[in-house]
Amino acid sequence: MSVTATIDAQSDGAGVLPLAERLWETRRLSLALAKPVSAEDQVVQATDDASPTKWHLAHTTWFFETFVLKPHLAHFRTLDERFAYCFNSYYEAAGPRQPRPKRGLLTRPSLDDVVRYRHHIDTGLETLLKSGVPQRHPPVGALIELGINHEQQHQELILTDLLALFAAQPLRPAYKPSSPALASRGEGAGAVRWLDFAGGIHRVGHDRSAFSYDNECPRHEVLLRDYRLADRLVSNGEWLEFMADGGYASPAHWLSDGWAAVNGRGWIAPAYWEGENGEWRQMTLGGPVPLDLAAPVCHISYFEADAFARWAGKRLPTEFEWEAAANGLPVRGNMLGSGALRPLPATQGGLTDKPTQLFGDVWEWTQSAYSPYPGYRAGPGALGEYNGKFMCGQYVLRGASCVTPEGHTRATYRNFFYPHQRWQFTGIRLADDA
Amino acid sequence: MSVTATIDAQSDGAGVLPLAERLWETRRLSLALAKPVSAEDQVVQATDDASPTKWHLAHTTWFFETFVLKPHLAHFRTLDERFAYCFNSYYEAAGPRQPRPKRGLLTRPSLDDVVRYRHHIDTGLETLLKSGVPQRHPPVGALIELGINHEQQHQELILTDLLALFAAQPLRPAYKPSSPALASRGEGAGAVRWLDFAGGIHRVGHDRSAFSYDNECPRHEVLLRDYRLADRLVSNGEWLEFMADGGYASPAHWLSDGWAAVNGRGWIAPAYWEGENGEWRQMTLGGPVPLDLAAPVCHISYFEADAFARWAGKRLPTEFEWEAAANGLPVRGNMLGSGALRPLPATQGGLTDKPTQLFGDVWEWTQSAYSPYPGYRAGPGALGEYNGKFMCGQYVLRGASCVTPEGHTRATYRNFFYPHQRWQFTGIRLADDA
Amino acid sequence: MSVTATIDAQSDGAGVLPLAERLWETRRLSLALAKPVSAEDQVVQATDDASPTKWHLAHTTWFFETFVLKPHLAHFRTLDERFAYCFNSYYEAAGPRQPRPKRGLLTRPSLDDVVRYRHHIDTGLETLLKSGVPQRHPPVGALIELGINHEQQHQELILTDLLALFAAQPLRPAYKPSSPALASRGEGAGAVRWLDFAGGIHRVGHDRSAFSYDNECPRHEVLLRDYRLADRLVSNGEWLEFMADGGYASPAHWLSDGWAAVNGRGWIAPAYWEGENGEWRQMTLGGPVPLDLAAPVCHISYFEADAFARWAGKRLPTEFEWEAAANGLPVRGNMLGSGALRPLPATQGGLTDKPTQLFGDVWEWTQSAYSPYPGYRAGPGALGEYNGKFMCGQYVLRGASCVTPEGHTRATYRNFFYPHQRWQFTGIRLADDA
Amino acid sequence: MSVTATIDAQSDGAGVLPLAERLWETRRLSLALAKPVSAEDQVVQATDDASPTKWHLAHTTWFFETFVLKPHLAHFRTLDERFAYCFNSYYEAAGPRQPRPKRGLLTRPSLDDVVRYRHHIDTGLETLLKSGVPQRHPPVGALIELGINHEQQHQELILTDLLALFAAQPLRPAYKPSSPALASRGEGAGAVRWLDFAGGIHRVGHDRSAFSYDNECPRHEVLLRDYRLADRLVSNGEWLEFMADGGYASPAHWLSDGWAAVNGRGWIAPAYWEGENGEWRQMTLGGPVPLDLAAPVCHISYFEADAFARWAGKRLPTEFEWEAAANGLPVRGNMLGSGALRPLPATQGGLTDKPTQLFGDVWEWTQSAYSPYPGYRAGPGALGEYNGKFMCGQYVLRGASCVTPEGHTRATYRNFFYPHQRWQFTGIRLADDA
Repeated sequence: MSVTATIDAQSDGAGVLPLAERLWETRRLSLALAKPVSAEDQVVQATDDASPTKWHLAHTTWFFETFVLKPHLAHFRTLDERFAYCFNSYYEAAGPRQPRPKRGLLTRPSLDDVVRYRHHIDTGLETLLKSGVPQRHPPVGALIELGINHEQQHQELILTDLLALFAAQPLRPAYKPSSPALASRGEGAGAVRWLDFAGGIHRVGHDRSAFSYDNECPRHEVLLRDYRLADRLVSNGEWLEFMADGGYASPAHWLSDGWAAVNGRGWIAPAYWEGENGEWRQMTLGGPVPLDLAAPVCHISYFEADAFARWAGKRLPTEFEWEAAANGLPVRGNMLGSGALRPLPATQGGLTDKPTQLFGDVWEWTQSAYSPYPGYRAGPGALGEYNGKFMCGQYVLRGASCVTPEGHTRATYRNFFYPHQRWQFTGIRLADDA
Repeated sequence: MSVTATIDAQSDGAGVLPLAERLWETRRLSLALAKPVSAEDQVVQATDDASPTKWHLAHTTWFFETFVLKPHLAHFRTLDERFAYCFNSYYEAAGPRQPRPKRGLLTRPSLDDVVRYRHHIDTGLETLLKSGVPQRHPPVGALIELGINHEQQHQELILTDLLALFAAQPLRPAYKPSSPALASRGEGAGAVRWLDFAGGIHRVGHDRSAFSYDNECPRHEVLLRDYRLADRLVSNGEWLEFMADGGYASPAHWLSDGWAAVNGRGWIAPAYWEGENGEWRQMTLGGPVPLDLAAPVCHISYFEADAFARWAGKRLPTEFEWEAAANGLPVRGNMLGSGALRPLPATQGGLTDKPTQLFGDVWEWTQSAYSPYPGYRAGPGALGEYNGKFMCGQYVLRGASCVTPEGHTRATYRNFFYPHQRWQFTGIRLADDA
Repeated sequence: MSVTATIDAQSDGAGVLPLAERLWETRRLSLALAKPVSAEDQVVQATDDASPTKWHLAHTTWFFETFVLKPHLAHFRTLDERFAYCFNSYYEAAGPRQPRPKRGLLTRPSLDDVVRYRHHIDTGLETLLKSGVPQRHPPVGALIELGINHEQQHQELILTDLLALFAAQPLRPAYKPSSPALASRGEGAGAVRWLDFAGGIHRVGHDRSAFSYDNECPRHEVLLRDYRLADRLVSNGEWLEFMADGGYASPAHWLSDGWAAVNGRGWIAPAYWEGENGEWRQMTLGGPVPLDLAAPVCHISYFEADAFARWAGKRLPTEFEWEAAANGLPVRGNMLGSGALRPLPATQGGLTDKPTQLFGDVWEWTQSAYSPYPGYRAGPGALGEYNGKFMCGQYVLRGASCVTPEGHTRATYRNFFYPHQRWQFTGIRLADDA
Repeated sequence: MSVTATIDAQSDGAGVLPLAERLWETRRLSLALAKPVSAEDQVVQATDDASPTKWHLAHTTWFFETFVLKPHLAHFRTLDERFAYCFNSYYEAAGPRQPRPKRGLLTRPSLDDVVRYRHHIDTGLETLLKSGVPQRHPPVGALIELGINHEQQHQELILTDLLALFAAQPLRPAYKPSSPALASRGEGAGAVRWLDFAGGIHRVGHDRSAFSYDNECPRHEVLLRDYRLADRLVSNGEWLEFMADGGYASPAHWLSDGWAAVNGRGWIAPAYWEGENGEWRQMTLGGPVPLDLAAPVCHISYFEADAFARWAGKRLPTEFEWEAAANGLPVRGNMLGSGALRPLPATQGGLTDKPTQLFGDVWEWTQSAYSPYPGYRAGPGALGEYNGKFMCGQYVLRGASCVTPEGHTRATYRNFFYPHQRWQFTGIRLADDA
């Protein structure tokens, strides 16, 4: 990707911490997220989609090594040349790599060795920062900024992938005991209110005044029609209604590929739902808990989101309808910092004419296929592979989830997954024509 | 789908034949296309994507039976109730069906029985037309219109699927001997000229003044930026340059899923290309022929189209850029009626400021994911499944191919296939930002 | 394989027809078996295991061409060199070939072309026979003898594979209408009588005094313990008892791989059984018929045979126990010549101390893995691949089935299939220790 | 399996330790084998065939719990009921279980928990032994004996599976540094000498005078022909000759299924061989080492063993030829106790007329399919599943390997694997007819 945001743009904003401070905070947070689980938990790969915690810790480190230190720190010394093979994710231009479905075979290097690797790279980064190069050469600062954002994405993945791992275990362990304060209140979410938005020509995408990913750019104009959005996310209780109405048993509401997925994968409920004697429980990072009817439905595929919307007589929003509605709203909500680690029921918070839960709780599927913006060109070299080569077959999600690190999202942020994937914290907000 | 075009709209146009005439012409053409090949050729299924000729003949007949005669012809008698299971394609609401990859098992009913089945349904259609019902009740006429267009799609498939079958045979037979007049001239296409188009708000989609598919509607406004299109299709000669430059050997230009397809499927050239002693030949409906450097490249996937465009420093057009350029141009070119049965080199024809080859030769991949237009809702019942449920994971192609029946396409026509599929007559026209 | 049987050995026996007569009879029979079905029926491949009728007609012809005419007929001219690729089955030494699961793609050469190919080769064989070479050079005669036996095997396969094809069709056609005389009598088979056999050293295998396959040789001694055999085959009625007792629902009686097959393939009854309202019907070459309780169970895998035997507190015989019991008994029973085309209930026929149904009705699974006899060495060249290279992972079956051509089997004959295969006419005779 | 060997039979032999002593020694050895590797190394599953070390430690413990303590120790208390699901291997009668290919997901219970589990069961076993029950009730003692032998099998698997894990790692770690004393001498093994053995009726199988597995019984007579055996195992140097002669490149010597395996799996050398610049290295438990030409070839499939033998103009021995030759010879060789952890070149040791390397180095493939002995019946209940249900599709191996615990093998011992499996320490001794 082409990284043009400058360090200055980042540090002179209101309340934005200096680069170095954010770097060390990010690096510390990754270790902190890994701390509650054992070396055994950190080495195993739950599914082909997920990666081991240890791998995430090492890969984010390799990223700094490869794209920041090797090209920009004089006299930098690599700890072990073989780590590049182990911890390159998908950058063809950065050389061969351990196949994705085999990341869980890497018992070596050990977790201790990976922590030492992190320390080695942190020392290098410290040297680089002290040299003043990133401050004097904005592109170097921007690479560090990218590394921070990259690591934040993997922080979300650490928790997402640990949930996949724990849900696959007969012993159903908890990452962190579920707080009693989060206990289900046994009642549904309140009635949905529909908020109206005016169409016309809107400007969308990031203006590069601060850090953004290349896939959010260029900023450009789009033409929208008048539309409406639900003020809150679809709840578990509403999902149960869909299920009770034969949602998973009749092809009428499904895309063709979606119906094939339902049957081929045996879906009868969202991922991580477990039925016992007619009662549904949900596997969470706090272990199995009773289903909270008021909380947003989570761990659903695009196929399920789309079928639900059609069943409800509505539709999913486009990514630009979502962005236009989110534009200018404060970026806050139930994210990683809340410590809940699962989506929570909507609370109105007084903004009666604004959508709630836009940021946090769950990533919201949109009906927009993940495509390049007009004028988008992937940058040269390995970093050009960061986003551009995935613009096919996936759908855009907007917002943030309950495990997204604070500071990592914004109204223009584009997340993307394949339509069958359910292991992420994904949900729905309904839309409709005006 | 919701079928609202009326019979009147069709028959009072300039040069448009009456409904009945077009119906019988279409029904005759299907049999005529099947005539050159044997009953053996007509029963076998070449791949999971392709279907047997006999199945196409029967399925199009089942379509008229199910959606026209059963609901609208009094005293209609079904020939064999079991045919519905055999010849329903994918309409869930129309009941269970022979699995798609097993269509080639249907040695029974025999080809003779299928021809009898066609005759039985044709007799019913004749009775219905003579009753005046389609003329008096536009929805019935519109269903017949839909049946005609549906059968035209399968006429293209009959030839497409026969090519797949013949290309899979050690004896490499020809559907129809290749005309000497089509022989390769051994020289490349002329230089590409770039045509400029103005952006702004454009109206796209069909206005339903005549027949169209539901996926072309509603007509709506889109916002385009200034853009440029190549005046002609990419040629085989240009494709050889891409190959010579390591097009299939380096990941740099490929989407991630595309690079996986190249390696997983072992692609080293377009489908149906066969290399011998450094010379490429191409399997066609006329049998194997030397590669015509000036002719449009054909049988390439979206992945290949996209990689080629990136390698060329250009991009694929969006479907609306294509439509805006095609709007108002005459719908003619190398289609089924030419008898060539393969794409031919571009000829200028005097229109020096207009794109050539827009209709005919090959379907043109666009960069647009196949999605519903704003306000689109699939109609109720089985016909609602015609287009809507496939709006996921596929890409839009525009134009027509050398085996598209005349009268079947238009500027608003949206064809769609998965990005890995190559058995269709598919090619590329390059686009660029202004 | 090494072919050492001489022409004389065949022709001077009591009632054994001269070689030429048997050759023409065999060649005619293949066409006669194909006659009731259409060209469409003859081109399609039902499953990876089965082959199209047309392919069988051509492959048996290619066999004579490749191993008899090309090496032994002066001035022999090949009709089409490409047929070798199309119709070689598995002989690596005879060159590349159409992959087995793609035999059904061969719509070309057409059935008419294959009949012409047969005629061309028959003319060559006639010339060769008239030349006197086979009579003067026993190895040449032996090759013709092998070709006859090879074609007989494929005659059985033509019917076996057509049943697979017809059973896979929604229209459930009949190869030949089922005779009323074969109609189910609705009663079970009589009680099993157990026949005692003495152990000790027995001579088994063929002495090469007449034609045999190489896998029946060398004749050698084996040591048996006293044993018992059921006088008749296990019946459908007995199989229903097994099913009613949870035979397919409990792992207790199954081999580990067998239990995996039951679950992975969803077996709940023998192949071609179809349940309707608690009534079982069986698809046969005569179309679907009510289950005949007295008839032998058929179309079961080794896994099912083995599980049934364990459930019954018995075991399967070894191939040598079977051979010792069959030794010297007349080779007759319900084979192809009877025209029944399905297994029939046992009839005693007066031989109260001899096993019935040894030859005909169904091939009998033994507990013997298909292994080479002591001293066996496969012959040189392509013919050495005939049997030897399959001696791994398969089990021996003895006897013959209701579609085995008369004259093709004997007490030493070793048939063999993989333990999961069910499309053959396979059944069980129980054994026990003395 | 039916366990009839008595405790007395074990303890009154010359030099055989008392049951309790052997039990504790065995239990200690498992932990000792796991000690050199980390918790991370112990939790990961290298392939579907292999299991994690931690799983082996727990499963062997579950075996004692399930078959010894639960039925025979009064007041026994289970530590965690859920462990039965986690650590049951394949005993259908013992309830549901973690699917085999998902054993590597079990990060919980932790290694520490598993060690605690072992301690808990050891305490129970100690209580049981002190109660005198095993001494007074031979079947209980026999169950402990079975548990010891079962754990010994898993000790071999711990090392075998760790090699699979380490060989799959980019860092190629060593389980234990390779001893310089084992370094390759760079020269081939000496010439093979052929030893003659007389045929006739031989008694084979175990007489149950001491512990044996049920698959070694009943002892019975077999008829052998005169035969010859190579005095030593086939060496790496000889295998290189096979490879140089196109061993993996020509179908002539291969079984049909073997040739499919060569091509489908891309075999070009034994497992764990790694080529660099024309030099072969071999991954071992001591890490990668240069190929020792004099050492026995190892990690080959049955298919490769069979092809090599045919290429060499010889054959594999039957399991009874091997047993008759080994009968009465001392059970010693390069087994686990030697500490070499890989096969070593043959040393004559003065017994010039006896085969060497019979026990230790590598398990020797025989040409015998793994089938029940005459009169064999699997015992009732879950233990009846120990051996009997695997008697299909596998081949018998005889002897022992370099990682077989001392005391675990004997002349009658039958090991068995599928013909494509290579991850075990498997090799060949050639045989020939007299």
